[in-house]
Amino acid sequence: MHTDGLSINLATVREQWNLREAVEACLRHSITAVAPWRDQVASIGLAEAARIIRSNGLRVTGYCRGGMFPAADAGGRQAAIDDNKRAIDEAAALGADCLVLVVGGLPPGSRDIEAARRTVAEGLAAILPHARACAMPLALEPLHPMYAADRACVNTLAQALDLCDQLGDDVGVTIDVYHVWWEPGLAREIARAGRNDRILAHHICDWLVPTRDLLLDRGMMGDGVIDLPGIRRMIETAGFEGPQEVEIFSAQNWWKRPGDEVLRTCIERFNSVC
Amino acid sequence: MHTDGLSINLATVREQWNLREAVEACLRHSITAVAPWRDQVASIGLAEAARIIRSNGLRVTGYCRGGMFPAADAGGRQAAIDDNKRAIDEAAALGADCLVLVVGGLPPGSRDIEAARRTVAEGLAAILPHARACAMPLALEPLHPMYAADRACVNTLAQALDLCDQLGDDVGVTIDVYHVWWEPGLAREIARAGRNDRILAHHICDWLVPTRDLLLDRGMMGDGVIDLPGIRRMIETAGFEGPQEVEIFSAQNWWKRPGDEVLRTCIERFNSVC
Repeated sequence: MHTDGLSINLATVREQWNLREAVEACLRHSITAVAPWRDQVASIGLAEAARIIRSNGLRVTGYCRGGMFPAADAGGRQAAIDDNKRAIDEAAALGADCLVLVVGGLPPGSRDIEAARRTVAEGLAAILPHARACAMPLALEPLHPMYAADRACVNTLAQALDLCDQLGDDVGVTIDVYHVWWEPGLAREIARAGRNDRILAHHICDWLVPTRDLLLDRGMMGDGVIDLPGIRRMIETAGFEGPQEVEIFSAQNWWKRPGDEVLRTCIERFNSVC
Repeated sequence: MHTDGLSINLATVREQWNLREAVEACLRHSITAVAPWRDQVASIGLAEAARIIRSNGLRVTGYCRGGMFPAADAGGRQAAIDDNKRAIDEAAALGADCLVLVVGGLPPGSRDIEAARRTVAEGLAAILPHARACAMPLALEPLHPMYAADRACVNTLAQALDLCDQLGDDVGVTIDVYHVWWEPGLAREIARAGRNDRILAHHICDWLVPTRDLLLDRGMMGDGVIDLPGIRRMIETAGFEGPQEVEIFSAQNWWKRPGDEVLRTCIERFNSVC
């Protein structure tokens, strides 16, 4: 079984290992691409995280995550912009392919999702010059509509690409099958993303039936209903050649298993069903 | 507090009352529009349900529900079509404004959502002549994408309206704020629905943050983040003059409270926040 084209988003094993342990485990399993989260980097320090990644020749398929632009007031919105600039710096220090952005939902007390969307567009425009100066592509991740209120008010690939068109170059999308598998016109939108060189990352996992928790019940590839090979073909046909990155939040199942079992299973499923 | 323009979907009090009891309770609270479910009608019998509704002069803002077209084989698909024709007959016997359709998700073992969508279109085309013969409008209800796998593969108002355009006259949509509040371009799509006289029903409830269950944790109006007056204005501006129909599935909260308290709260919130 091969591991070429496989990346592990380190959230998948966040309950088992810190960044150093997770990297060592990935290397044991011949996995040479990872995607760390900011808290995982912070807990061992940015310099040490960068050293571990470079000394092991790892590819960083994305740095998770910036975004979260909407806030209750102007001070909060500026703080989000400043924090995103720091995230860009960290992503650059790690040599990441892109900074993944989960844009944020409704600010506290608000019911105006269109206002939140305008705040997101403004926040992105505000950080884009810094991203360009750091040569760090911004990868907007449209999130499933069930997160529209509390995590991301950008909820379809079509909407994310409209936003990219508004912003110009150096911004693209993270296509996570969990969020977009249901989207009407998905094939068309993936092709559109490819034509404009907007595909920056490809996340995989599966949608379980039933899904028992809105956030922490993602499935291992093959255990759900997503047509993973079908979407993979669309993404490859659109010109994206990067790894498929496994990102599974699973409080009751995969986070409770030994990390090596999780990685073994990721590799098996990557070879058999993706 | 008034109850003009308020309808109660009887799922909202399904754990408290049968159809007869629910109707009596609605009348006690001066509510003269309801929307019953097929199982509620079946449990007292169609003739008796129709008698109760007519003798009390109730408006039936929708009959819930037909749909569920995808199936594992041709026999299953034909059975669904036949069952939908019976649902049309029942809706006509009850004098309903429309038959609400939840179209169905992936058939067992399938990961092909586009095939499911084609089955839905075929099923609708197959029942439409019977609906026309019975003068019973079909009200497609786009369901939130979190139900794409197991309940409905029609997940946006835009997609539902495309399907309506394909089918022609006598088919329209149920706009349930719970399912579409997050939809990018919602105002545009509601206006489009109005232009083509496609709005057949308007369901209300609220999206709670956090939402603890994908199916049975809908909120009372005002307890969540949906801009109910904003969407109501869009729908009224688009020309729909029917009642707002309260439909709340709430296993841990509203289904556990006395039915009269639920109805009182519906009326209060209808007057204060909708």
